[in-house]
Amino acid sequence: MFNRFLKTVVTTSMMFTALLAMNTSAATLSNAEQADMKALKQTALNSDLSYELVESLTTEVGPRMMGTPGDAKAITWAVAKMKTLGFDKVWTEEISNTQWLRGEVSAEITAPYPQKVVAIALGGSIGTGEQGITAPVVHFNTLDELKAAKVGSLDGKIAFVSYKMERHIAGKGYGPAVGTRVRGAVIAAEKGALALIMRSVGTDNNRIAHTGIMRYKEGVKKIPAAALSNPDADMLVNQLKRGKEVSFYLKLTASIQDKQIVKSANVIGEITGSESPEQIVAIGAHLDSWDVGTGALDDGIGVAMVMAAAHHISKLENRPKRTIRVILFAAEEIGLLGAKKYMQLHKNDMDNHVLGAEWDFGVGKIYEMTPRVGDNSLTAVRDLAKYLAPLGVALSPKNNARASSDMGLLTDAGMPSMRLSPDGNHYFDYHHTENDTLDKVIPEDLQQNTAVYTLFAYFSAQSGVDFRK
Amino acid sequence: MFNRFLKTVVTTSMMFTALLAMNTSAATLSNAEQADMKALKQTALNSDLSYELVESLTTEVGPRMMGTPGDAKAITWAVAKMKTLGFDKVWTEEISNTQWLRGEVSAEITAPYPQKVVAIALGGSIGTGEQGITAPVVHFNTLDELKAAKVGSLDGKIAFVSYKMERHIAGKGYGPAVGTRVRGAVIAAEKGALALIMRSVGTDNNRIAHTGIMRYKEGVKKIPAAALSNPDADMLVNQLKRGKEVSFYLKLTASIQDKQIVKSANVIGEITGSESPEQIVAIGAHLDSWDVGTGALDDGIGVAMVMAAAHHISKLENRPKRTIRVILFAAEEIGLLGAKKYMQLHKNDMDNHVLGAEWDFGVGKIYEMTPRVGDNSLTAVRDLAKYLAPLGVALSPKNNARASSDMGLLTDAGMPSMRLSPDGNHYFDYHHTENDTLDKVIPEDLQQNTAVYTLFAYFSAQSGVDFRK
Repeated sequence: MFNRFLKTVVTTSMMFTALLAMNTSAATLSNAEQADMKALKQTALNSDLSYELVESLTTEVGPRMMGTPGDAKAITWAVAKMKTLGFDKVWTEEISNTQWLRGEVSAEITAPYPQKVVAIALGGSIGTGEQGITAPVVHFNTLDELKAAKVGSLDGKIAFVSYKMERHIAGKGYGPAVGTRVRGAVIAAEKGALALIMRSVGTDNNRIAHTGIMRYKEGVKKIPAAALSNPDADMLVNQLKRGKEVSFYLKLTASIQDKQIVKSANVIGEITGSESPEQIVAIGAHLDSWDVGTGALDDGIGVAMVMAAAHHISKLENRPKRTIRVILFAAEEIGLLGAKKYMQLHKNDMDNHVLGAEWDFGVGKIYEMTPRVGDNSLTAVRDLAKYLAPLGVALSPKNNARASSDMGLLTDAGMPSMRLSPDGNHYFDYHHTENDTLDKVIPEDLQQNTAVYTLFAYFSAQSGVDFRK
Repeated sequence: MFNRFLKTVVTTSMMFTALLAMNTSAATLSNAEQADMKALKQTALNSDLSYELVESLTTEVGPRMMGTPGDAKAITWAVAKMKTLGFDKVWTEEISNTQWLRGEVSAEITAPYPQKVVAIALGGSIGTGEQGITAPVVHFNTLDELKAAKVGSLDGKIAFVSYKMERHIAGKGYGPAVGTRVRGAVIAAEKGALALIMRSVGTDNNRIAHTGIMRYKEGVKKIPAAALSNPDADMLVNQLKRGKEVSFYLKLTASIQDKQIVKSANVIGEITGSESPEQIVAIGAHLDSWDVGTGALDDGIGVAMVMAAAHHISKLENRPKRTIRVILFAAEEIGLLGAKKYMQLHKNDMDNHVLGAEWDFGVGKIYEMTPRVGDNSLTAVRDLAKYLAPLGVALSPKNNARASSDMGLLTDAGMPSMRLSPDGNHYFDYHHTENDTLDKVIPEDLQQNTAVYTLFAYFSAQSGVDFRK
């Protein structure tokens, strides 16, 4: 009797849930629109377009740091591709900046056991001069240890921070590691150091060092800063363990070209909405990369995904009601310069940005979607989640996401946002290295992620949902 | 009835096998010796010695190509370590050779889509001259395709072979791939090529190229030869696929120093036998490495394993009956020069080499033992196999092994040999690259492999088995 009662309850509950699901579904998309979603999913899952785009970008353009010939080529490439792919409008938004040149690097443990090491200049670092710097190494396990050093204690020394980044699906190891890269040189200089060397911010154990932006501070002496590959950081630690003075030679020919102004540009393309063209669903990625790899992961697959998603939607019989705007941001790596420009130009149009998402992280499949929308539109988000669930995407219970990297600035300006989180376990094996190349792209994952962006963009552009409410 | 009969047969058969096993065991080692085997196994499995040795070699010496300062340091290091570890005799056997210098490399696709690529000079290659070579690329999928090209068809061209090595537990992908590295330059030159470039002989997809020895042929023009990293070979293939002429720039400052004679030496240490000191159980590895990595895997772990094995045995109350000779061969990488010297010096003593094994392959656990012994001593080999089975080592049914690399020359001269085969699935991810560093060593596997070498050496030195019979 008890069992039978329970069974009845369960069945009724399940029916109620099913009924709710049907209602919600019906509320957001019509039957014809649901058929479009189904067709778009199949198209994206079967299409090689996003892979072809990243193959083309990495093979024909390659590295594209702002101010390099590759960056100019990438802009030309993106404009041409968007036109070929049938975008309704394509334009660029120019930015300018001073130029930083990487130059060459030479690094070596000179005592007690001389060995060459693999190092890379941090982005924005000054050079060492032609003679290089040879000095004793002072070892810190963390940035906090370096902060705790006394002023003057590093006079005539090279500071070395050996903190090792941890692997995590959501990249949570990056935060605790990246502080040394960004602020380490300033802190080391405040203590008197001649240079900063650090373990790469990376989860791999390849003899390839990771670059990334660093900053100087007004009033603090600029000192050169470089990262060592993980195996070389290990070796330096092992030499230090022996208790003898360890001496290090660093030569960087990097330079900040204060007077050389270089240009770049956001590349923007639209699939113009058929009913509310002024309302914008924004999907983005950044077009620039560091100068060492071909930027396949960072952010070539992002560029490919959002371009392919818009193209797939453009092949439907009718344009969606709202505009889908693909924003390929300039100069993300050196400080979100393209995103800042976008905010300048479009700040009065933010209310028309109905929802946005950017890909700039990870290499694996998207496994989670986290919104930042008005409470009333959570019903529609749950409906969207049902379309994404078969692709392995779970809906986060949170409603506080900030869009990734560039588009975070749009979130901050009030744009409802979606974070589509991919598996980031292996991203930092390659991040900001010459090892960021096409072979690291997993074609099936790229297809699936393109399907997620396609469904996300179509759903948001076709439904009338006001994601602010 | 039938079942019961079968059961009886099986039981009798099993008892008979068990009886045989006991007999065999009793025949090879006494109870006290069996206790030594047990104690040695525990010692080796619990000892950090082999890891400490490879850590020391890679941290304090590093790269050690013949003729470099590292090679001289390695010899000093090995002699000192053997003395510290309690070897009864330690000596060196000098060799000399002309010197090859790697110099610098610069490589670039210059058209249709200019991109820098990661390349490395093959060992022994001549340089290109200061101007480098810029020429159109002709693509061959395999060495056989290159062989089939017409004489003169590569005049003024750079030959590119893109064959990709396959991953295999026993390294079976190496044979089909390495021919291009060794003989490719000669074949390309015979067809008129200005230079040879090839995909690295390696199973990884890192932006790190693999070096290794190449050969010239009397009467055939010497041309420069370099390997590209796998991702760069992919990119070159992708550019070629577009059907446009692809142009490549290669500059190598490598040089063969015909008149500069450099020296090196085998380092040999013995645990002298207590009853038949003239009879030798030889365990070996090579002390040299390529000049790019620290040679942790190739062949630092081998050096560490055989030194630690002999040391563990030296700590027993009594020396084993036969001598255990640890041979650290010189200049394996550039052509088995130390092994050839050893054969010259010891050719009249080959009959006293009762059994030998060398480690020069793999990074994982030993999973198989294959003998090359007289049929009568197979019983003893099966007995040894019983001690190794709990360590995961299976006895191969074959009896035709050649000892690894250097010691293969001793096999060829009639020395009974043992091949202790480790998992080689990941060896060629790092082989002959700057990525061959300490972090790739798996400490537990090294302990286990050291245990295998320890048991192998003690068993062979303590038992009176004539492995030739």
